[in-house]
Amino acid sequence: MKTLFIGGIKSGKSYSAEQYTLALGSDQKPHYLATTELLDDEMNERISLHRRQRGGEFITLEAPLELYGTLKTTESPVLIECTTMWINNMLYHGRTNEQIVEHIEKVLALPNDLVFVHNDVGSGIIPDNPLARQYVDISGAVSQLIASRCDEVYHCIAGIATKIK
Amino acid sequence: MKTLFIGGIKSGKSYSAEQYTLALGSDQKPHYLATTELLDDEMNERISLHRRQRGGEFITLEAPLELYGTLKTTESPVLIECTTMWINNMLYHGRTNEQIVEHIEKVLALPNDLVFVHNDVGSGIIPDNPLARQYVDISGAVSQLIASRCDEVYHCIAGIATKIK
Amino acid sequence: MKTLFIGGIKSGKSYSAEQYTLALGSDQKPHYLATTELLDDEMNERISLHRRQRGGEFITLEAPLELYGTLKTTESPVLIECTTMWINNMLYHGRTNEQIVEHIEKVLALPNDLVFVHNDVGSGIIPDNPLARQYVDISGAVSQLIASRCDEVYHCIAGIATKIK
Repeated sequence: MKTLFIGGIKSGKSYSAEQYTLALGSDQKPHYLATTELLDDEMNERISLHRRQRGGEFITLEAPLELYGTLKTTESPVLIECTTMWINNMLYHGRTNEQIVEHIEKVLALPNDLVFVHNDVGSGIIPDNPLARQYVDISGAVSQLIASRCDEVYHCIAGIATKIK
Repeated sequence: MKTLFIGGIKSGKSYSAEQYTLALGSDQKPHYLATTELLDDEMNERISLHRRQRGGEFITLEAPLELYGTLKTTESPVLIECTTMWINNMLYHGRTNEQIVEHIEKVLALPNDLVFVHNDVGSGIIPDNPLARQYVDISGAVSQLIASRCDEVYHCIAGIATKIK
Repeated sequence: MKTLFIGGIKSGKSYSAEQYTLALGSDQKPHYLATTELLDDEMNERISLHRRQRGGEFITLEAPLELYGTLKTTESPVLIECTTMWINNMLYHGRTNEQIVEHIEKVLALPNDLVFVHNDVGSGIIPDNPLARQYVDISGAVSQLIASRCDEVYHCIAGIATKIK
C-alpha cells in the first residue's frame, strides 16, 4: 500500500498523513521518517513542534538524503515527511535530477506500506530565478512519479484531505 | 451555518461566495464585511470594483481589524471578505498569531450565518523572507481552523467552486 | 466541445490534455498549437522536450500571439498550450487586458473542438511587484472566462486530472 498526501504549506497534509498512517492498523508501530536537515533555528523550531505533535505514536527516523537505505531497515509502515524537503537536500548536496528520480524509484519498489507527504510548490507564480524554477520542476515531476505508483492520493487544503485517486 | 470559500487570486471565490450568501434565503438583507484597509490607489481601485460588482444586494460594513466587534452588532448572514487580508492587517498592526487565532475563535462562536472568503497563499514556492513565511503559515493555520468549524467548504479555481466538505 | 485543463507547474496538465485530445476520436489529425515564443535557451529546451514527448500524433502550429487567426484555418481539434504563456506574450507586446479578453472571446466562439491548457499561477503568495500582480489577475480572469464556456474542466495536480466541471 502506497499513499500520497499533497498540498501547500499549512494545508493540513502532515496531520492528515499521520492520522492515516496510524489508522493503517499495522501490527508494528509505524515509523516517521523525517527528511529535514537541522539547518537553522527556525527549522529547528518547526521540527520540535512537529515532534511534540506526534507524541509517542511513531518511531522517528532521520534521513535527510538516504531514504532508501533507511527505509529498507524496517518492515513497518513509514510516513515520509517530506519528499519536497528531501529533494531540496539532494539538490543542495549536488545530486542531479536523474539521481533523485532513480532514488525515488527504488523507494517505490520497497514492500513497506509507505505514506508520502509532498509539498505542492507549483501553483503560484513562476519564480524569477532559474534554480527555484528547477526546484519547482523536479518537485512536480517527483510528485507525478510517486502519485502514479500510489494506490491512493489525497489533495489537502485548509486541513481537508480530498481523495483524488 | 458557517461556510468557507478558499482559492487562489482570481479563482472566483468572491463571486461564488456572494452568490452563495444571497441564496441563503435569509429574511434579513445580508451584510458584506470588507476587511481591506484603504492603503493605496491600486487597493482602492480593487475595492471600488468589488463594490460595483456587489450592487445593492448587500449592506457593506468595514472592519480592517475588529471582526468580532463588528459582527456581533448584526444577526444577518455576513459574507466576510477576506480573512487573509484581515490577517495581513492584524500582523501589520502588531497583533500576534495567538491574538489572531483567539479572535477568529470568538468569531466562529457567533450565531450568525457566516460565509468566509480566504485566499490560498500556500501552494506556490516557499517564500525567501521569514515575514512572508510567517504570513503563509498563520494564513494556512487560520484556514484550517475556520474549515474545521464550517458546515461546508468549497475550493475555488477558474471560477468553479468544488465542495470539499 | 471545449475543455480546460488547469494546474500548477509540472502538475501533469499537458500530458493529460494531450491524451484527452487524442482520445476525442476525431476523423482528422489533431493540431497542437504552441503559444511559446522562442525567447531563451531554457525555453528552447523545454519546447524541444515537449515536442519529443508529443511524437508524431499532432500537427504542430505556432502562434505566440495570433490564436484566433491560426485556429480558424483548421477544423481539426486543437490543443492550445498554453493560454498562460499566450497572455504573457500579449502583455509583453503591449496588448491590454481588454484586448486579451476580446481575443479569447473570439477563440471561444470557434466551432472547433478546443482543449485549453492553463497554468494556475494564483495559489501562492501575492507577488510584491505590480506587474506580476497584474499578470496573476488577468491570468485568473481568463481562466474563469474559458472555464465558464467549457463543457468540461479538469484540475491537475501530481499528474492526476480531477474533473471539476
